[in-house]
Amino acid sequence: MSHPEPAGVTVLGLGAMGSALAATLLDAGHDTTVWNRTPERAAALSTRGATAAPTIGAAVTAQPLVVAVLFDHASVHETLDPVIEQMRGSALVNLTTTTPNEARELATWAAGHGVRYLDGAIMATPPMIGGPGAAILYSGLREVFDDARPVLDRWADSTYDGADSGLASLFDLAMLSGMYSMFAGFLHGAAMAGSAGMSATEFAGRATPFLSAMTDSFAHFASVIDGGDYTVPGQQSLDFSDLSHIVRASEEQGVQPVPIAAVQELIGKQIAAGHGAEGFARIYESLRADSTEDAR
Amino acid sequence: MSHPEPAGVTVLGLGAMGSALAATLLDAGHDTTVWNRTPERAAALSTRGATAAPTIGAAVTAQPLVVAVLFDHASVHETLDPVIEQMRGSALVNLTTTTPNEARELATWAAGHGVRYLDGAIMATPPMIGGPGAAILYSGLREVFDDARPVLDRWADSTYDGADSGLASLFDLAMLSGMYSMFAGFLHGAAMAGSAGMSATEFAGRATPFLSAMTDSFAHFASVIDGGDYTVPGQQSLDFSDLSHIVRASEEQGVQPVPIAAVQELIGKQIAAGHGAEGFARIYESLRADSTEDAR
Ligand SMILES: NC(=O)c1ccc[n+]([C@@H]2O[C@H](COP(=O)([O-])OP(=O)(O)OC[C@H]3O[C@@H](n4cnc5c(N)ncnc54)[C@H](OP(=O)(O)O)[C@@H]3O)[C@@H](O)[C@H]2O)c1
Ligand SMILES: NC(=O)c1ccc[n+]([C@@H]2O[C@H](COP(=O)([O-])OP(=O)(O)OC[C@H]3O[C@@H](n4cnc5c(N)ncnc54)[C@H](OP(=O)(O)O)[C@@H]3O)[C@@H](O)[C@H]2O)c1
Repeated sequence: MSHPEPAGVTVLGLGAMGSALAATLLDAGHDTTVWNRTPERAAALSTRGATAAPTIGAAVTAQPLVVAVLFDHASVHETLDPVIEQMRGSALVNLTTTTPNEARELATWAAGHGVRYLDGAIMATPPMIGGPGAAILYSGLREVFDDARPVLDRWADSTYDGADSGLASLFDLAMLSGMYSMFAGFLHGAAMAGSAGMSATEFAGRATPFLSAMTDSFAHFASVIDGGDYTVPGQQSLDFSDLSHIVRASEEQGVQPVPIAAVQELIGKQIAAGHGAEGFARIYESLRADSTEDAR
Repeated sequence: MSHPEPAGVTVLGLGAMGSALAATLLDAGHDTTVWNRTPERAAALSTRGATAAPTIGAAVTAQPLVVAVLFDHASVHETLDPVIEQMRGSALVNLTTTTPNEARELATWAAGHGVRYLDGAIMATPPMIGGPGAAILYSGLREVFDDARPVLDRWADSTYDGADSGLASLFDLAMLSGMYSMFAGFLHGAAMAGSAGMSATEFAGRATPFLSAMTDSFAHFASVIDGGDYTVPGQQSLDFSDLSHIVRASEEQGVQPVPIAAVQELIGKQIAAGHGAEGFARIYESLRADSTEDAR
């Protein structure tokens, strides 16, 4: 028995990420067609064996699987609106970063033209593609995920998050929200320590193991949230978590308190609503989708 | 040769933290005097061998080392103003949470009355006291830290951060700022995932290893900050880090974007000031004490 031929793929968009994805496919022996708005960017991949399509129409009809790695939602429409009818029957995997609603709009639009749509959210930088630690989340048509799996798994750990095309983007942005808030908190802490002459490197040496260990608290917050009772014992109360003194200390040191003031805003709302004796996880109620106005 | 007797200590304030600190000293054989505004709270410790002082004056003169674990800066003055002259020559270790400036004020006030002052910031919860993982930062008079070391080391890892009494509080609040920002970011992410029906526990299972691994980025940000050049290669640019789409996705999902909007505010300021091509660590300039107005 012979192994099946590696599937043919078209990659649209040869920026840093699209080029890394296409290069990984070429290395694995896939018949790879590439296209970029600025055609010069295809040269390096052509040398490595890719077929540079002369037009977007030629690109999307060259292979049964089309992968888009463009700039944003608008650039996907700008690129594919003129040729979408030629794609009828094809599978479109869109790895361009969008909001969940934008992904849903693209799924509906694609379906309206007979194109089978899978959305993806890349949790990796270009050099990580094809190596350990890279993850890509997918949502949309399960059959596209299953059929394309031998291709997708070349790039990263592939996770299917559900039929709603917006889910991959949503879960990706949810994780990134945590990451960027943590980064901003670290930089605010570094600025506070820096106001007394501590180097950022010394502060990082202290903060890295501390914040890494503190991620263990997430599971505890989560069990309180899922349990739906913010009064269960063993929690740090909101009154105890009042961060007014950190905001004040930041101002006294001449450091802008922006990130920590935002957290205090959430805490203060719950305390003002009479929930000061309940656990810290209750600020989830200041954030969540279906919170009633007075609980915010 | 005999070991020196464990030193005598007075503990003022028998809330959750003061009680834990006093109990640890009793277990280690220290002659321990305790005092609490509400005297009933001393009963449990008396049973374990502590001497409950009948008045604050008796408490502060019973031992050469006085440890305050009260509520806030104001409660320290309220408690000790009437008896400070009786403490001349004593050492005062203040573990009550204060801002750096409040700690500095207490140090000056104590020195004016001949009291040798050391400030402390507890990085632990009461059950952690005396066990692994507890840390207490100290700043103020080095001689008090050195003399009291056999007592302090009963409680936690003891670190001396410098002669400026405000430093222990400052570094503590700097780390807590990072922690609370991370917590708020996690809860915001959980609310986004929750808006599509994912449980907080499932989100925590995904976010915990991801955010823990991402703390490795701190050292990289720190080296850029300490190097003073936000244009060095190998960084994620501010333009790439623009979080407008996360703010928008949060709003579209009906989730309050407060924490991530605060980060975007910092990013947006630097982009508007023309630094979009520079690295993410540059938002430090939106925060730091000595930033010029236009760089904010
Ligand atoms: N890089 C990462 O670390 C990373 C991580 C996760 C997700 N992503 C996502 O992957 C996507 C690509 O990122 P990248 O890093 O490759 O970005 P990039 O290096 O800036 O490349 C952008 C690509 O989009 C194309 N493009 C922009 N506007 C277009 C338009 N209106 N019509 C057609 N093509 C257009 C560009 O073509 P030209 O060459 O003609 O300008 C280029 O191929 C983005 O959505 C990004 O958010 C990237
Ligand atoms: N618990 C922690 O996890 C933790 C961690 C780090 C730092 N700390 C700090 O440790 C200190 C004590 O915390 P805790 O957890 O023990 O708090 P707590 O359980 O609420 O106890 C507060 C203590 O302060 C006393 N107090 C309040 N106002 C007073 C006043 N005006 N005059 C005299 N005494 C007064 C209370 O006396 P009454 O009994 O008479 O009310 C009680 O002994 C705080 O500054 C806190 O920030 C605590």
